[in-house]
Amino acid sequence: MHAGTLRPLLERLGSAESVLTHSAAARPPDATIEAALRWLERPGHHFVPLDAAVYPPLLAQLTDAPVGLFVRGDPSALSLPQLAIVGSRNPTAGGRDHAASFASHLARCGLAITSGLAIGIDAAAHRGALGAEGITVAVCGTGLDIDYPPAHGGLAAAIAARGALVSEFPLGTPPLQMNFPRRNRIISGLSLGTLVVEAALRSGSLITARLAADQGREVFAIPGSIHNPLTRGCHQLIRQGAKLVETGDDIFAELRALAGALAPALQAAVPGRQNPASAGPALDKAYEILLDALGFEPASVDVLVERTGFAADEVASMLLILELDGKVESRPGGSYVRRVLKAAK
Amino acid sequence: MHAGTLRPLLERLGSAESVLTHSAAARPPDATIEAALRWLERPGHHFVPLDAAVYPPLLAQLTDAPVGLFVRGDPSALSLPQLAIVGSRNPTAGGRDHAASFASHLARCGLAITSGLAIGIDAAAHRGALGAEGITVAVCGTGLDIDYPPAHGGLAAAIAARGALVSEFPLGTPPLQMNFPRRNRIISGLSLGTLVVEAALRSGSLITARLAADQGREVFAIPGSIHNPLTRGCHQLIRQGAKLVETGDDIFAELRALAGALAPALQAAVPGRQNPASAGPALDKAYEILLDALGFEPASVDVLVERTGFAADEVASMLLILELDGKVESRPGGSYVRRVLKAAK
Repeated sequence: MHAGTLRPLLERLGSAESVLTHSAAARPPDATIEAALRWLERPGHHFVPLDAAVYPPLLAQLTDAPVGLFVRGDPSALSLPQLAIVGSRNPTAGGRDHAASFASHLARCGLAITSGLAIGIDAAAHRGALGAEGITVAVCGTGLDIDYPPAHGGLAAAIAARGALVSEFPLGTPPLQMNFPRRNRIISGLSLGTLVVEAALRSGSLITARLAADQGREVFAIPGSIHNPLTRGCHQLIRQGAKLVETGDDIFAELRALAGALAPALQAAVPGRQNPASAGPALDKAYEILLDALGFEPASVDVLVERTGFAADEVASMLLILELDGKVESRPGGSYVRRVLKAAK
Repeated sequence: MHAGTLRPLLERLGSAESVLTHSAAARPPDATIEAALRWLERPGHHFVPLDAAVYPPLLAQLTDAPVGLFVRGDPSALSLPQLAIVGSRNPTAGGRDHAASFASHLARCGLAITSGLAIGIDAAAHRGALGAEGITVAVCGTGLDIDYPPAHGGLAAAIAARGALVSEFPLGTPPLQMNFPRRNRIISGLSLGTLVVEAALRSGSLITARLAADQGREVFAIPGSIHNPLTRGCHQLIRQGAKLVETGDDIFAELRALAGALAPALQAAVPGRQNPASAGPALDKAYEILLDALGFEPASVDVLVERTGFAADEVASMLLILELDGKVESRPGGSYVRRVLKAAK
């Protein structure tokens, strides 16, 4: 954590204390605060309060948004357009494959893949995104200084290097059953939508899906054999209105539309938020080329591929981010146009 | 066909001719009519004109109801509460199993199982119903004197013995591609709902499902692996609003409610129709015991099983038929009460 982000934390220590410790009532022992400050001094460790520009805008929309987030990795990853992928801790081989392949495909499309670092579907989704050299976000139900689950230390390090681990729980918080449903609202709240891959009835994944629906986000579910108990949860969700998906493109098509609809609200809510399209000079250059190639007449991805020489998945990914940022607009039939930015004229 | 049902046919020969032959404009050769009359003389062969009491009431509701039906077997089977089961001619082993097991379970619940006598899902559904000693109806796309598909001669004979084969096409009509979609409206039109088991996109089964929806009937679909091309049609239907079903009971619960809602309209439309609950003295006795056991206070199936000593599936099946006949009413929570028959007092 840099001094710049530490200062606001220290200034609002009264409320930050309640974040840094488990009890809002008792003043935490000085040793706890000192341990937290020492953790924050290590590279890639951050605390992001609710009023920070880098606080993820979709999460900020929740009425019960965490007052602050501990982050290990790149906090700006939390503001990327995200798909949550959740499911059983004991999936079938097929379910694991689906989690990995949907994550991989959608990461290539420009979505960050968000999950809960659990064994099973969660880990397969994180690994699928990492394998595609995409961005992935792990929302933890423990303090970020706790290795949980113990077997996922290496996966956590890889996620921190290509995205972020995030928790609202104070450092030192052990894995407590009661904290996981609470954690799930952050998984769904960071994301444009939640995909449930394989889930039993009455499972935590269905809680995440219900939270996503309550938050006004999309819920997707993969159907499967009626003889597999782990499709019951998915089928129940589909009956309740979740979108049945067969391919990653089914999801991308929906989220692209949703991202477009959300963009103005997000920009109004968080005018100063970090623009993922301005993350670096090389990135900026690519976006500039794409915007130049895209006039105010609708153009398809194919046309833009031809005009820019970029790969189709790169173009699709950049268009999604530009749409979220309100710079382009998608049109019926899969074409795009630049948006006239009236306020800037 | 008995003389009693033959007479109305002969009296309206002007319109019956158009049924007995392919062209409504040309007068059929006498030889064609004579062949039809000879066919009708054989035992179990019938022609049921639209105005006959035994004409199936659900089919009569269609704006394009056939003006008459050739029937081989028991015409009253066409008026039983029915579920259509349709699907691919080249199903997977799993799809075939589903067709047979759903058909068998729902036949035991008291539904007749209706399909198109085709190879694949159709045949598995007919066989499932027959294996459960249930009633099954085959709607043919050819004249009933044509063995089609050729391999299903034995199956057709078994269906005629435990239900009925039915066709609107004149005797001698060969298998013509254009007639099968037309035939499909009879499959869905006879039935309270249509279950699609496995179906490719742009397949005949989806036409049947669309016709069912247009006719205001239920559409059910079984989900499956996203890697099976034959679940695509089912998944498309679910996206369009078909009910995703995992078990036969999912279907039975829906149809029971629909049967209850349809009963008054059907009774008003066809006051003289054959009452399936009065098919024979032994059957009557069982229904009498059940009605006696069921008072005007709501009782559950379990309670009725205890009071009557009948098996649960028998009780459920009889309740469905009594509900269709307007003699009992289902209440929220799965209980039943007798209906007060005001007109009879």
